[in-house]
Amino acid sequence: MGKDCSEPVSQIHVKPGMTVKELVDAMGMAGAYNGGALSRAVRIYEAMLRDERTTKFFGLAGAMVPAGMGGIVADLITSGHIDVLVSTGANLTHDIIEAIGCRHFHGTASCDDVELRHDEINRIYDVYLPNMAFEHFEKFIQEAFTALEPESCISISGLLTHIGRRTKNGILHTAAKNGIPVYCPAVQDSMVGLQYWLFSQNNHVTVDAFADMPALMDRCFNAEKAGALLVGGGVPKNFILQSMLMTPNGFDYAVQLTGDRPDLGGLSGATLDEARSWGKITEEAQAVTVYADATITLPLLVAAVMERMHHG
Amino acid sequence: MGKDCSEPVSQIHVKPGMTVKELVDAMGMAGAYNGGALSRAVRIYEAMLRDERTTKFFGLAGAMVPAGMGGIVADLITSGHIDVLVSTGANLTHDIIEAIGCRHFHGTASCDDVELRHDEINRIYDVYLPNMAFEHFEKFIQEAFTALEPESCISISGLLTHIGRRTKNGILHTAAKNGIPVYCPAVQDSMVGLQYWLFSQNNHVTVDAFADMPALMDRCFNAEKAGALLVGGGVPKNFILQSMLMTPNGFDYAVQLTGDRPDLGGLSGATLDEARSWGKITEEAQAVTVYADATITLPLLVAAVMERMHHG
Amino acid sequence: MGKDCSEPVSQIHVKPGMTVKELVDAMGMAGAYNGGALSRAVRIYEAMLRDERTTKFFGLAGAMVPAGMGGIVADLITSGHIDVLVSTGANLTHDIIEAIGCRHFHGTASCDDVELRHDEINRIYDVYLPNMAFEHFEKFIQEAFTALEPESCISISGLLTHIGRRTKNGILHTAAKNGIPVYCPAVQDSMVGLQYWLFSQNNHVTVDAFADMPALMDRCFNAEKAGALLVGGGVPKNFILQSMLMTPNGFDYAVQLTGDRPDLGGLSGATLDEARSWGKITEEAQAVTVYADATITLPLLVAAVMERMHHG
Amino acid sequence: MGKDCSEPVSQIHVKPGMTVKELVDAMGMAGAYNGGALSRAVRIYEAMLRDERTTKFFGLAGAMVPAGMGGIVADLITSGHIDVLVSTGANLTHDIIEAIGCRHFHGTASCDDVELRHDEINRIYDVYLPNMAFEHFEKFIQEAFTALEPESCISISGLLTHIGRRTKNGILHTAAKNGIPVYCPAVQDSMVGLQYWLFSQNNHVTVDAFADMPALMDRCFNAEKAGALLVGGGVPKNFILQSMLMTPNGFDYAVQLTGDRPDLGGLSGATLDEARSWGKITEEAQAVTVYADATITLPLLVAAVMERMHHG
Repeated sequence: MGKDCSEPVSQIHVKPGMTVKELVDAMGMAGAYNGGALSRAVRIYEAMLRDERTTKFFGLAGAMVPAGMGGIVADLITSGHIDVLVSTGANLTHDIIEAIGCRHFHGTASCDDVELRHDEINRIYDVYLPNMAFEHFEKFIQEAFTALEPESCISISGLLTHIGRRTKNGILHTAAKNGIPVYCPAVQDSMVGLQYWLFSQNNHVTVDAFADMPALMDRCFNAEKAGALLVGGGVPKNFILQSMLMTPNGFDYAVQLTGDRPDLGGLSGATLDEARSWGKITEEAQAVTVYADATITLPLLVAAVMERMHHG
Repeated sequence: MGKDCSEPVSQIHVKPGMTVKELVDAMGMAGAYNGGALSRAVRIYEAMLRDERTTKFFGLAGAMVPAGMGGIVADLITSGHIDVLVSTGANLTHDIIEAIGCRHFHGTASCDDVELRHDEINRIYDVYLPNMAFEHFEKFIQEAFTALEPESCISISGLLTHIGRRTKNGILHTAAKNGIPVYCPAVQDSMVGLQYWLFSQNNHVTVDAFADMPALMDRCFNAEKAGALLVGGGVPKNFILQSMLMTPNGFDYAVQLTGDRPDLGGLSGATLDEARSWGKITEEAQAVTVYADATITLPLLVAAVMERMHHG
Repeated sequence: MGKDCSEPVSQIHVKPGMTVKELVDAMGMAGAYNGGALSRAVRIYEAMLRDERTTKFFGLAGAMVPAGMGGIVADLITSGHIDVLVSTGANLTHDIIEAIGCRHFHGTASCDDVELRHDEINRIYDVYLPNMAFEHFEKFIQEAFTALEPESCISISGLLTHIGRRTKNGILHTAAKNGIPVYCPAVQDSMVGLQYWLFSQNNHVTVDAFADMPALMDRCFNAEKAGALLVGGGVPKNFILQSMLMTPNGFDYAVQLTGDRPDLGGLSGATLDEARSWGKITEEAQAVTVYADATITLPLLVAAVMERMHHG
Repeated sequence: MGKDCSEPVSQIHVKPGMTVKELVDAMGMAGAYNGGALSRAVRIYEAMLRDERTTKFFGLAGAMVPAGMGGIVADLITSGHIDVLVSTGANLTHDIIEAIGCRHFHGTASCDDVELRHDEINRIYDVYLPNMAFEHFEKFIQEAFTALEPESCISISGLLTHIGRRTKNGILHTAAKNGIPVYCPAVQDSMVGLQYWLFSQNNHVTVDAFADMPALMDRCFNAEKAGALLVGGGVPKNFILQSMLMTPNGFDYAVQLTGDRPDLGGLSGATLDEARSWGKITEEAQAVTVYADATITLPLLVAAVMERMHHG
């Protein structure tokens, strides 16, 4: 990427059996639009993961677990590639649902939603989730809540670790096992939150909205360097980016995978350049946004980076 | 809107001096795409506001206050058209900034963000906000926090009402004055939240993440009918829609103004039909999504509805 | 719009009975995102229409006539606000359909397209068009073609004027009546084109693809100034913008109403700044893009500009 | 894809060295949103290419050649996977530019377009093209036009074949070499067209706009089955889809890669289901749209399909 004419576009040629890294390398030789951005994202994410001084944040927004992206997140935790995870409550709800043995199903967006309602199926674009899953979810999570110490005061991440210790797989389980904090500022805004309201009608355990801030802020102040992979926008993106605002530093690496657009003004679609004006990312930060559906770009990005790191 | 061919499309003719309602009526006679959807949104929002049995929710996401949309929200509260407001923390931060006399400015998205950084200007697409505003903000809000009762435990809406009582105009002020609760599940995810972390380093007032749920749930259970105007998606949209999930009912009216798209699977762009499968909105609910920038559609919608209501 | 902080954002307040101009003025005082862009578009389009030295181009892409936008286009021709019209073939096909008394109908996008097929209804998002219309269209247009001089060679705009002279209203009729050329470079790509293929099986009238170029190029070379209102992208946008490329000048005014996005690289969503690098628009051109559905922004823009021009 | 809950979503796990087909298979096991659509597109395009009764159309819109996608198109022609190519004029212009030895370059969309203008660089989002290229282009193409038979009348595809025979590589060269017709209904709307206007000032060769229709229509009537891969929308998509309208049949296979959206009503973003109502594709057609930037999805799709076909 430059302001002169020194690096020519190469016409892409694909061949049978090429690996994901080879394909992304070809996209990088072409180098234009979001295909070019994706190849830059691979190089930046690789540099971020290889840089041992870097505290690595991961933002998870959008209905990614119902779309099968949770496996990638859990694997990244296991591999030590996530130090801090920030998620929407919905992704954690669906992670728990899968972790207790319920499943999401391939459906279609061209359907009659009233009929689905009668069939007790909840729709997430073209993914179906039977109501039954929420009955199992309620049973599991109420038991988990009941095991909390009465009259105590806990943090949101503490609540999520408590849940993760009681599941056998998935994001929350893997995070708890590996001691990775999961932040979910809007935990009330999810089935976890609605169930907690049910629980709190007869129990008294206070969830302190700000109890997670000191540990997060300490981490940000102590981070030699910081990097972020942001899937979608929403609270996770903003909460991660703002976390460095109080420190003298900013993010040194940032990759954003989103289908939103910048001209609407919302943070979800905002460019990472905009984040430079705020100091959320440093002036010299390596940063790129790939505008496309993360169900395509996240697997592509991670597979290509894993292949690059495996080779040396 | 029908499945047969009975209502013809009228070609639009505009004339000098037509009112907003007359323009939207013409869009409705044409009736296609998002122009047609906007005219249906006007009719649904009018019906919702006229229906006295309806508890009226308003969801505010996206950087709407920096774009001047806060005035409309405050006016709707004053007019009694909002019973429950759910907002992102960012909108409330910018509302406070305006309420204490600082301003946002017309800028441009075609700029050098590193230069802006050096000029101490923060960018929100084509809106500029000088850093100085955050200094005033810090002073104001730390004073507000200091006035909280030490060692107490408060709800997020309680904290926001406390702030609103100390401002002289804007959304929080108007809501506090009119006794309208403002919910902000992810309050930590904002400058309000970062300032609260600063405050909490030397003070101890617990903000209970779930303390707002009982009053909200009571309201939902007691609502004869429910309606929602959703500007943007994010936490406000989901938190509002899920709030009726625990009750036997759902939303009877729903209007969504968003620039997001459904095929990415995220809730922000999801159709309201999808919400029917979950029971978030009723099977018979009047509901429509207008896909466009809310800085265009929100003023249009509200001006047209105010004109219709004024006339009878 | 500036690079400093001198023009503050005003919070919008709407009131019953405000005119479209008043609403757009309020959007301009707010001034952000696409609402702000729309208010700038109004000022630019007004300046363009008031500037008597300006040759005024209009680009019509997207299925605008089925959505009722054809009336606005015809009225602009009648008012002398369009000197050169460039359209897709589809818009002209639907214009003819309406001009011969057939209608498009309000439908819904949530439907079973196979059922529609069985009901002989063609769908354009949420607009329905009965097959019957195409039968009337075929009868009308074959008669029109038959009236062409055998063995002659005509231009595309000549063919369209010939058709416009045989209709009683609509875009083609109004253009023919007012001597405004209608260019449609891809006329083959439409029902008009398919019908012409039918006609040409037994008749021989050559349509010269390039016969329109000399008159258009003369016009471009002779234009003291040039301005363009571009609805959608596609061939009309590119054909208009490229038309000044061969001259020493470029467009002095340009307003684009589109829902496309720039990061995909296609010309339809490209910014007008990009057009400056090519010299399609001048370095000093007043130009703005409003990213939103033109079924909302076109009526808004034209109503506001007509009101401004009416007042002086 | 089903209306019941029988096929569960699998969480994705990626591993170093996985091939593109393996990655897309994993996306298919997850199966949601555009990642799921991409995996279905791979299966449909494979079925289409393997089905020897199928006439295979390829639509090329958007600035794909400047983004390096031309290599894939040329290779597909060489492999016999394209029978009919429909392109915008711009893609062919850029194909010729590359074929005569000029290059496009990696640039950036965050730049000053007036500066670029002074540097004689034309921008296509983040691709740069020096003006010099157009000087070489003019020289080449005027020589090519001069070699046309004076006073003759040719078709657009004939003109393009004539050019393709004079280049040494690229799409037009490969198509000419393999006898594949290239249709470009709006050839005037491109640098090829502007140069032809220049040529026609002193020469007289008529390009008959409709001369390509009989051969195309014969092909459509004779096609036992028909399939289409549509990159972007615009004229190529519509011209291909409408081509079967006059026959008793429709497309049996259709894959669309686009970043446009359906709710704006334009054909570019329209769903393929909508095309069923028109009979453009058959009621039983295998069809899918992947909503994302084709610089990502086209290489992915073709690499995965080539790998599947290579294996048997």
